[in-house]
Amino acid sequence: MSKALEAAHMAFQNDEVPVGAVIVSSDGKVLATAFNMIRQLNDPTAHAEILAIRKACEALGTDRLEGCSIYVTLEPCSMCASAISLARIAKLYFGAIDSKSGGVENGARIFTLSQTHHKPEIFGGIMARECGEILTTFFSLKRDNDQGRTN
Amino acid sequence: MSKALEAAHMAFQNDEVPVGAVIVSSDGKVLATAFNMIRQLNDPTAHAEILAIRKACEALGTDRLEGCSIYVTLEPCSMCASAISLARIAKLYFGAIDSKSGGVENGARIFTLSQTHHKPEIFGGIMARECGEILTTFFSLKRDNDQGRTN
Repeated sequence: MSKALEAAHMAFQNDEVPVGAVIVSSDGKVLATAFNMIRQLNDPTAHAEILAIRKACEALGTDRLEGCSIYVTLEPCSMCASAISLARIAKLYFGAIDSKSGGVENGARIFTLSQTHHKPEIFGGIMARECGEILTTFFSLKRDNDQGRTN
Repeated sequence: MSKALEAAHMAFQNDEVPVGAVIVSSDGKVLATAFNMIRQLNDPTAHAEILAIRKACEALGTDRLEGCSIYVTLEPCSMCASAISLARIAKLYFGAIDSKSGGVENGARIFTLSQTHHKPEIFGGIMARECGEILTTFFSLKRDNDQGRTN
């Protein structure tokens, strides 16, 4: 998770919502590291998890990441949770809870649905304080800047 | 929708699940056409809708498709429905219902959730027969081939 948090810091530096993701193979090899690049890529689907899944699949030459684990600093949204299922990822570790846009323990609760064909093992709240703090700092700075602009 | 169906036929020819998508701007210009490319790209997120959203955003140089419409031959899954919301697409037209993997009228019912910040207008069942038939034919051929292999 510390590597995913490092990736989140890269997003922060690029003025993107600081979320990072890392995908690791069953034998512990890091296959992909990614962070939010929505603005940079002009792509609303460019969440850290989606980019990491695409990179890991490219690295392995497959469209399924069976046996792999994904580490994400924030609870995945419903798009990313669905993608994790489609990619057949075995284990999901996430940091901070996202009560506003999360899709695992909140909202769509993708992995509780009978329709979700593949469900990973889920471990939430890993390094939750650190993963949450970078988001709080980011949005706090955004608010200050916005207030600065309107004054 | 007929253009989306043409795209679905391209997927069929490439041995991909035949689903096609087209994104049109508010003034009627076709911004993107795409079809499933999961196997070709080794990318479990390469559903027609995701690829179309990425293309349309690239064409417009933005991460939001406000005012745009998306035409999809099959009810979007929860990943794609969430992406349609994130992209702020104004209108969703879809063809066949997907009771197994759909996320609009089935499963996660993404657009009924209070957590879904943007909800498009939804028009389902457009050319549903034609959009469904190509899928039925595809899976029927797959089954025949599978049976051929085991005999």
